[in-house]
Amino acid sequence: MAIDLKKARFATEVIGVDSDAGHVEQALNIGFIDRTATLEEACKEADLVLIAVPVDKILTILPFVLDHIPVHATVTDMGSTKRMITGTVKNHPMRRNYVPAHPMAGTENSGPTAAISDLFRGKIAIMCDQEESGPQHVALIEKMFQVLGMKIAYMSADEQDHSTAFISHLPHVVAFALANAVLAKENREIIFDLASGGFRSTVRLAKSSPEMWGPIFQQNKEYILESLDVYIRQLKEFKDSIENDENRMNELMTNANHIRNILDSSNGGSLITNEETIIKLYTK
Amino acid sequence: MAIDLKKARFATEVIGVDSDAGHVEQALNIGFIDRTATLEEACKEADLVLIAVPVDKILTILPFVLDHIPVHATVTDMGSTKRMITGTVKNHPMRRNYVPAHPMAGTENSGPTAAISDLFRGKIAIMCDQEESGPQHVALIEKMFQVLGMKIAYMSADEQDHSTAFISHLPHVVAFALANAVLAKENREIIFDLASGGFRSTVRLAKSSPEMWGPIFQQNKEYILESLDVYIRQLKEFKDSIENDENRMNELMTNANHIRNILDSSNGGSLITNEETIIKLYTK
Repeated sequence: MAIDLKKARFATEVIGVDSDAGHVEQALNIGFIDRTATLEEACKEADLVLIAVPVDKILTILPFVLDHIPVHATVTDMGSTKRMITGTVKNHPMRRNYVPAHPMAGTENSGPTAAISDLFRGKIAIMCDQEESGPQHVALIEKMFQVLGMKIAYMSADEQDHSTAFISHLPHVVAFALANAVLAKENREIIFDLASGGFRSTVRLAKSSPEMWGPIFQQNKEYILESLDVYIRQLKEFKDSIENDENRMNELMTNANHIRNILDSSNGGSLITNEETIIKLYTK
Repeated sequence: MAIDLKKARFATEVIGVDSDAGHVEQALNIGFIDRTATLEEACKEADLVLIAVPVDKILTILPFVLDHIPVHATVTDMGSTKRMITGTVKNHPMRRNYVPAHPMAGTENSGPTAAISDLFRGKIAIMCDQEESGPQHVALIEKMFQVLGMKIAYMSADEQDHSTAFISHLPHVVAFALANAVLAKENREIIFDLASGGFRSTVRLAKSSPEMWGPIFQQNKEYILESLDVYIRQLKEFKDSIENDENRMNELMTNANHIRNILDSSNGGSLITNEETIIKLYTK
């Protein structure tokens, strides 16, 4: 995001702050950031602060940032959860400078060397509870996502946590458990020699970092447990159908095939027209 | 496979037989096949017969083919299961002309227009129970997989069904159930608008055809149910850990992360050196 915002001249200077000195060094060498500073110093100079750390760390860093920014500055974050984070700063005097967001793009890799230029183009950015933020701050973050080529979806923090539980957090649990199931087999050497494209794509998210995903699972526990209940019910029904009811098994597969139309239409579907960014408002 | 074998001059003429006249027409137009015939006529003229149909259809087509080929001809199949198929022709007088195989490559799409040139390069081909086939037939099929750039793994039909239950069939059930879980949600329109790369890769196999996968699930029922038991146990343990035991949750994710090393090393690892095809024999 840093490199793309600089390329687009949306950002003139990027100050990088990281708890890992090696990552700061790498980011300086690659040219992602212009210089480094302490978090406090960086906040004092910033027009826009992007917080991109695991969601448990956002709970302490976001109030600290709001304590130290100038009155005109805008703050946003890239966390995958929103209810607990927005709850933490609900009564902060600088709350309206903060725009809760969740740009939905990334890989299972981390650190500056895992960065991908133009990663965000065509992807979705969720913006939450925009009525709680000052309109100039909302406008700046909208502009930022538009510069990155993202599609914007507005919803409440609660709706974002509920929806991402199903579309993002559940697939991670599915992949972690699939990896563990295959790793638990005795003759796993043979099995892994056979690993084909289908297995690789289904299990890919199991490479994701526990430091990032543990706090997400904890902060969004209620909705993730709900999604797991729904998923385990579907799995058991599928298993029963394999065992006892071939017609039902075929119905379940035919139903699952509908995912093809839905994914094809949501990819370049309702949210976007040509290269323009279209805004969609979800009301409860 | 037809087009690659012709390109490599391994096949001089390809006769295509399909129950779907439209697919035959398409294959002729694209140039995948040189001509068509009835199955019986095609068998009588063939040096090599490749059976690529759903595994339930193989149960009737394979004996028919063995009944009609000339004495020198070789027969193989591309089915994802092997125990029931080899069982069907165990006592056939032409059994030694048949080489049971499972080239592990493909997509969730089907029909001639879904064909991908060079699809098989670098992928695994399983060959089963080679002691039951004539050595000249085994040698021809080995040569064919080598021409396609495949790595070959030898194992028993039982071991192949057990291993592919975990590495291929289970991931399909996982994806079908994930699609159905998300499709079952009320506010699914919002959820699908948010579908990101992580969801798409995890759910990709749910686009697979019931005609192909239903018979696989039925023929390999015993091992697939075993793999589902292991998987559901892992899922429940992960769910419990999210609910009650954060340390255990982190351990489970750290364990799942090992999939990274194993996939990276099995991709170009033990089975292949440079561009050569290395054969690996699995003994029970």
